[in-house]
Amino acid sequence: MKLIFSPASPFVRKVRIAAIELGLIDKIEFVPITLAPGQTNDAYVRDINPLKKLPALILDDGEVIIDSYVIVEYLDDLAGGGKLIPASGPARWKVKSDHSLLQGMLDSMLLCRYEKMVRPQGLRWQAWFDDHWHRVWQGMARFDKQGDALSRPIDIVQIGLVCVLGYADFRFADCGWRKAYPNLGAFNEKMLTRHSVKVSLPPAA
Amino acid sequence: MKLIFSPASPFVRKVRIAAIELGLIDKIEFVPITLAPGQTNDAYVRDINPLKKLPALILDDGEVIIDSYVIVEYLDDLAGGGKLIPASGPARWKVKSDHSLLQGMLDSMLLCRYEKMVRPQGLRWQAWFDDHWHRVWQGMARFDKQGDALSRPIDIVQIGLVCVLGYADFRFADCGWRKAYPNLGAFNEKMLTRHSVKVSLPPAA
Repeated sequence: MKLIFSPASPFVRKVRIAAIELGLIDKIEFVPITLAPGQTNDAYVRDINPLKKLPALILDDGEVIIDSYVIVEYLDDLAGGGKLIPASGPARWKVKSDHSLLQGMLDSMLLCRYEKMVRPQGLRWQAWFDDHWHRVWQGMARFDKQGDALSRPIDIVQIGLVCVLGYADFRFADCGWRKAYPNLGAFNEKMLTRHSVKVSLPPAA
Repeated sequence: MKLIFSPASPFVRKVRIAAIELGLIDKIEFVPITLAPGQTNDAYVRDINPLKKLPALILDDGEVIIDSYVIVEYLDDLAGGGKLIPASGPARWKVKSDHSLLQGMLDSMLLCRYEKMVRPQGLRWQAWFDDHWHRVWQGMARFDKQGDALSRPIDIVQIGLVCVLGYADFRFADCGWRKAYPNLGAFNEKMLTRHSVKVSLPPAA
């Protein structure tokens, strides 16, 4: 199978960490592509993903799976199931819901980045930036208090969280999340001892 | 269980249709709330969803499930599983991936609405609107060609698609999707014969 990717995408990083942790990384061929808001990429939009988002997984039979979370679920299933996402019970819904929060935090971080660094300067709206950054910040506060989520064996919540924190360092280096959320700082350090997390760090900003 | 909702949200509509189709609507108490970009709602953000998004499902034990898709998965599981989302095999991944496309189309439609109707007039960026509307339009083109997705027994893809089309009518009434995509027009008419789809139509814009 092939993964269409860009090295700076936190959504791609999530899939990459999951694939390494599941022992499936050698089964995936990585195919780079560049996509940006306001720029067209007709072939990708027409044939792969109308949303112009990364990553996309192309299976050997040509079927395309989009959305980083669905790709992780697919890989987890391929690895036997229940590895990074609990297979049943209350833990399953807690993990899925927590992951949705992380996904929304990443979406908001990307909106903040577009607002502050991509949108033409005279067209920026501070209230929009503040609104989305507040979501990120409140989300971090939520996880900072979740001792269990920070200490249990690795799962998709921990992977998503380390991608949020890595993206904060990559694009919002001065935001001060380590000082505000010391438990997340300790969690991030511990996660960085893992090969999967270390090798997937974003390139220098 | 309680569903925190707003009647105009297409994400809420998806859950409502699913709950009716699954025979679970009577088990859910609907609790209305108003949320808007640039406005704060501290209690909801702190206690329920830091993303300030709807809907949220509150279980009887107090656990919160966020994200309309995760809520539908939870309800599907509660109803026995495999009803609106195939339980296994290639159909499962196709449906999940197609639903992610629809979810992204709705996200882009909301970004278009905020850009055109909520952001202060002098701060609007046409290229951003066009980029996101193009995603919606290309996504519709993709589904217009998927005869199987439009005609098989109801599932989460059909529910998501009817929510996309209903939201297009609600917020972008002049966009002309019926003319551009006649198969989607016929699909929408057929879906509107269902009680679940009819009673969940958005209020007058």
